[in-house]
Amino acid sequence: MIEFEVADPNFRQRVADDFARQKVMQTMGITLESIEPGEVQLQMPFREDLTQQNGYLHAGVLSTALDSACGFSAYTLMSTEASVLTIENKINLLRPAENGPFRIVGRVIKPGRSVIVSDGKLYDADGKLISTMSATNMAVPLRSVGP
Amino acid sequence: MIEFEVADPNFRQRVADDFARQKVMQTMGITLESIEPGEVQLQMPFREDLTQQNGYLHAGVLSTALDSACGFSAYTLMSTEASVLTIENKINLLRPAENGPFRIVGRVIKPGRSVIVSDGKLYDADGKLISTMSATNMAVPLRSVGP
Amino acid sequence: MIEFEVADPNFRQRVADDFARQKVMQTMGITLESIEPGEVQLQMPFREDLTQQNGYLHAGVLSTALDSACGFSAYTLMSTEASVLTIENKINLLRPAENGPFRIVGRVIKPGRSVIVSDGKLYDADGKLISTMSATNMAVPLRSVGP
Amino acid sequence: MIEFEVADPNFRQRVADDFARQKVMQTMGITLESIEPGEVQLQMPFREDLTQQNGYLHAGVLSTALDSACGFSAYTLMSTEASVLTIENKINLLRPAENGPFRIVGRVIKPGRSVIVSDGKLYDADGKLISTMSATNMAVPLRSVGP
Repeated sequence: MIEFEVADPNFRQRVADDFARQKVMQTMGITLESIEPGEVQLQMPFREDLTQQNGYLHAGVLSTALDSACGFSAYTLMSTEASVLTIENKINLLRPAENGPFRIVGRVIKPGRSVIVSDGKLYDADGKLISTMSATNMAVPLRSVGP
Repeated sequence: MIEFEVADPNFRQRVADDFARQKVMQTMGITLESIEPGEVQLQMPFREDLTQQNGYLHAGVLSTALDSACGFSAYTLMSTEASVLTIENKINLLRPAENGPFRIVGRVIKPGRSVIVSDGKLYDADGKLISTMSATNMAVPLRSVGP
Repeated sequence: MIEFEVADPNFRQRVADDFARQKVMQTMGITLESIEPGEVQLQMPFREDLTQQNGYLHAGVLSTALDSACGFSAYTLMSTEASVLTIENKINLLRPAENGPFRIVGRVIKPGRSVIVSDGKLYDADGKLISTMSATNMAVPLRSVGP
Repeated sequence: MIEFEVADPNFRQRVADDFARQKVMQTMGITLESIEPGEVQLQMPFREDLTQQNGYLHAGVLSTALDSACGFSAYTLMSTEASVLTIENKINLLRPAENGPFRIVGRVIKPGRSVIVSDGKLYDADGKLISTMSATNMAVPLRSVGP
């Protein structure tokens, strides 16, 4: 395990506040379970209104949870002057997502001043690995983003 | 442009039916606009309940629309015996998704009996390219999937 | 087609010089065929000493050519103060690479001050699309890189 | 750790034979260090003739080693009737590759009859993580491939 240095001792509060501002998290019922330096864990229920044609959670719903887990894992290490934006992510779908609740772990594998790389894993209620993500996030000055 | 051969002359109805079974499409307000051999177009509104912390559509929401566009572009070429499943996809986020409605185009770049590769593009209301996807889909026998 | 603004009017010479410093290009016989704002084209022969177990060019060899095409397409738009580094790339292998020489096109799809996204395509001697790449490159200050 | 079932008790010999047929491995000096069910380890020297413009190993050279590690990790689990082909891979470049020899680990994260997903990691001589790959490989009937 890598030991990460945090730039802001108040990172847990900052992550929780930003997570609360992601309205899509509430819409999908995704909750923040733990926040550590370089790692966050989320939980997501199975929801029939988020399924694809075979009755599994849609790949994009898994992407939503995994992208947030990866992004917030990066955000734990950022300064108070930064916001986090996804540059790219890649997801592999390994098994059908039908057995919730799901646990999602995002973990930094390479910290950096502006570019941070994270891995995400999504497990079902039996602990089976359902989907993996590899994501690149960017720290952008707070004043340059927002509606 | 590649000319694609369809295995099922009734592919438009089959795609429309399967799209209607993706409950997440209705939940997110995503609609099916056109169906051609190897290509489908979707539309998605801007929705505040699907945003991230800066007020843009969440990356995972773009992934949802792009993944469906890519998957259904592959499905246009499949036989009546097959269902479509995403193996993997990668998304690049180029610009903030704030100016809807968005147009999403999924297009097959390599047909195949079991593995089909598609590209997806998501444009905002001004025609600006917001996000791209590269996705691999698989044709699986109908009887092997489903809840 | 996007019209790109170049930061350095002398970009063609700068790209050619940097390409000549990539020793792996000579080792693999890859040559620089054209340089335009936001786009470069390379050529690569079929070489038996670069094959995998079935006698096709190895996926990593295609990656090498595509990564350079994408990176140099980004580099055409950078200032004289910047060097280019790959953050990530994803490749899809569509058909066996057996029919050379191959033509490789790298094209910027999103310019940016520090992060640039490019697409790459690799065609065989018959113009068949063999492989595609989606790549993110970064402009780094010249003084911060190098052996 | 996942315990994998091998389809062919003679998988070590089969992997070694197929590795020996990848001519690009010899060209780049990449060697096969260990073969276990679902995992292979390779080694690669630093080679100046495989560098990019800053004197680091080129991203595509890392891709070559990582793609083979991922592909052969999948191949350990296949039957004697199958050959392995890369469908796609994605690589993240975390640190410059300048300090060899490099150790490359490919590990299956999802076995399957036709589609196998693997993760790859490339470490430098100090054990630093230099690059990661996520790859999808396919088992194809032996008679359908080859030059």
